Amino acid sequence: MGEFDKIMAKAFRLAEKGLGYTSPNPAVGAILFRDGEIIAKGYHRKAGLPHAEIEALNVAGERARGATLFTTLEPCSHFGKTPPCVDAVIAAGVSKVVSAAFDPNPLVRGRGFSRLKDAGIEVIFDVLKEEAVDFYRPYTKFITTGFPFVTLKYAQSLDGRLATKTGNSQWISSKQSLLYSHKLRAINDAIIIGRQTLISDNPQLTTRLVKGPNPIRIVVSASGKLPFNRAIFTDGLSSTYVATLSRAIRNSADHFQVISVRGGRKGLILKDLLSKLAKMGVMTALVEGGSRMLTSFLSQKAADKIVVCTAPILIGDGISAIGDLGIKKLTDSLKLVDVRIRPSGPDIIVSGYLDWK
Amino acid sequence: MGEFDKIMAKAFRLAEKGLGYTSPNPAVGAILFRDGEIIAKGYHRKAGLPHAEIEALNVAGERARGATLFTTLEPCSHFGKTPPCVDAVIAAGVSKVVSAAFDPNPLVRGRGFSRLKDAGIEVIFDVLKEEAVDFYRPYTKFITTGFPFVTLKYAQSLDGRLATKTGNSQWISSKQSLLYSHKLRAINDAIIIGRQTLISDNPQLTTRLVKGPNPIRIVVSASGKLPFNRAIFTDGLSSTYVATLSRAIRNSADHFQVISVRGGRKGLILKDLLSKLAKMGVMTALVEGGSRMLTSFLSQKAADKIVVCTAPILIGDGISAIGDLGIKKLTDSLKLVDVRIRPSGPDIIVSGYLDWK
Repeated sequence: MGEFDKIMAKAFRLAEKGLGYTSPNPAVGAILFRDGEIIAKGYHRKAGLPHAEIEALNVAGERARGATLFTTLEPCSHFGKTPPCVDAVIAAGVSKVVSAAFDPNPLVRGRGFSRLKDAGIEVIFDVLKEEAVDFYRPYTKFITTGFPFVTLKYAQSLDGRLATKTGNSQWISSKQSLLYSHKLRAINDAIIIGRQTLISDNPQLTTRLVKGPNPIRIVVSASGKLPFNRAIFTDGLSSTYVATLSRAIRNSADHFQVISVRGGRKGLILKDLLSKLAKMGVMTALVEGGSRMLTSFLSQKAADKIVVCTAPILIGDGISAIGDLGIKKLTDSLKLVDVRIRPSGPDIIVSGYLDWK
Repeated sequence: MGEFDKIMAKAFRLAEKGLGYTSPNPAVGAILFRDGEIIAKGYHRKAGLPHAEIEALNVAGERARGATLFTTLEPCSHFGKTPPCVDAVIAAGVSKVVSAAFDPNPLVRGRGFSRLKDAGIEVIFDVLKEEAVDFYRPYTKFITTGFPFVTLKYAQSLDGRLATKTGNSQWISSKQSLLYSHKLRAINDAIIIGRQTLISDNPQLTTRLVKGPNPIRIVVSASGKLPFNRAIFTDGLSSTYVATLSRAIRNSADHFQVISVRGGRKGLILKDLLSKLAKMGVMTALVEGGSRMLTSFLSQKAADKIVVCTAPILIGDGISAIGDLGIKKLTDSLKLVDVRIRPSGPDIIVSGYLDWK
């Protein structure tokens, strides 16, 4: 790993600190480097607050003149809630900008770099490109398609069961995996569960075991017939929404809001829900079960990533994680790409991206 | 890793060369070391041929005098098909013996070491003890219980399916995993499949993709009603047996032999079959499916190890690898211990030992 890569890797670690707070903006990290040392760091802390580059420039002050700016993403060239970063970079007298990725926003892509070059600043991009592609997958999907990036997450036995045949499922995975699960919640804007999971687990869907914001909570229920005495409706720890076909339920109290979703042959049209969530600023959504919900997201091709925590146990007949996908031939099975494996205590966490091609 | 560990690791690599050939003897490796260098190597090539120590001593000749002998297992002290190794070690004038493990045979355990000490030879044991425990698990089970060591092996999708609902299963895993599967066959004395696997896959159950002996082949079928035109009955590549309750089928031709097995409430009593296999000299057996066979071995507590190759695909409803184990509570699920994970091409191979406690 060369020096540029090393500094960029540090910038990504900074960017990560913003995950879960910045939507609908991407998480970005920035470092100012001069005379062989890092003179300032910054990251985008929250939508509405200064961008990463501005944070770093503010720290450096006059010392930014002649320095090299490392950014995980192309500096912005347009007015949003804050003025364009490129103007500030130029004004500060930075001599070189090293970036990991172009801003995938089709309205921006390359314009930030062009403006910098026009101002006589040297621009180097695609440093740690692979990490950038991975890191910005959610933002890229969101900004180019208008849908949130959807991750399916569940814990299963080695034989693919969520629970025994009597429904006994708590806790299938280890404490380490539970912590990881809360970390995933913290970097997602919304959590989606189905009616059955609400009823059987009465989950809080918070990030109480880790640092990080609580995501908004969404219960999907075609009928909208739900036990409204459950934690997510009463604890006030985050906003709760009911996504439903039903016109019968109303936001009768302050406990939750209703998202009215269109229906189709397969029930609720998940892409309609996702599109509405995107309009609410949800860039990333985590689907935490149960089996019917996970299966629907897969069969409606509405999932981007899957994170499966496998515990080293065998259950035999029980509740399968994934139900009918209508697959008859092995060649039609859903493929995961860019698969990663990591141990988590006694468990194995496998993650991969759905390849819908 | 100290010098003793390093030399012992080499001795284990030698021992591995004998795997699949030595039953009912254990695979053993031996190294003679003197003046900072390895002067001779040996391993047990095949039951009936010289033991590892003798091979190494024969190579070293007079130079063995004053050398240190590294052995993966306690040298034998009793007459089998060959004379006791300890006599040869003493006669050769070896000054020190370094071993990884005691011979677990209750009739031997420690006697080899005692004889060596009595002859004034320094004995050091438990070098690379953990590797030894793992390596000699099959032999230890075989010699202490009179049953073969049974490994269940199968390939599944991430959601725990062996095949689609229409039974389509070839090839669920990668070429690398297929090679690994053939290596597993080569180090097992017998392969066991059920009737359904014979019918749907018509497998050869040979080690054609790797170096190593073909195991004997066993089809389990309570009724014994089998298609006797299948490869394993006609190709002559290894012996084939039909394990059955039926008295109706006979070894009418030379194509196969019958193993008559007792029946119980759950059908064929697998431990009766295993005990009979052990008497035939089978120390290790590999169960390759299908689902009913795997499930029976688990529900009859007749399996020791499980090797699951998971492909990064999702199938949804289909043939589950593991069927009904009668488990209702999660705390009653079967636990795997000493779990190992390794990538195999795009797949993940998880192995572990069943914890029947």
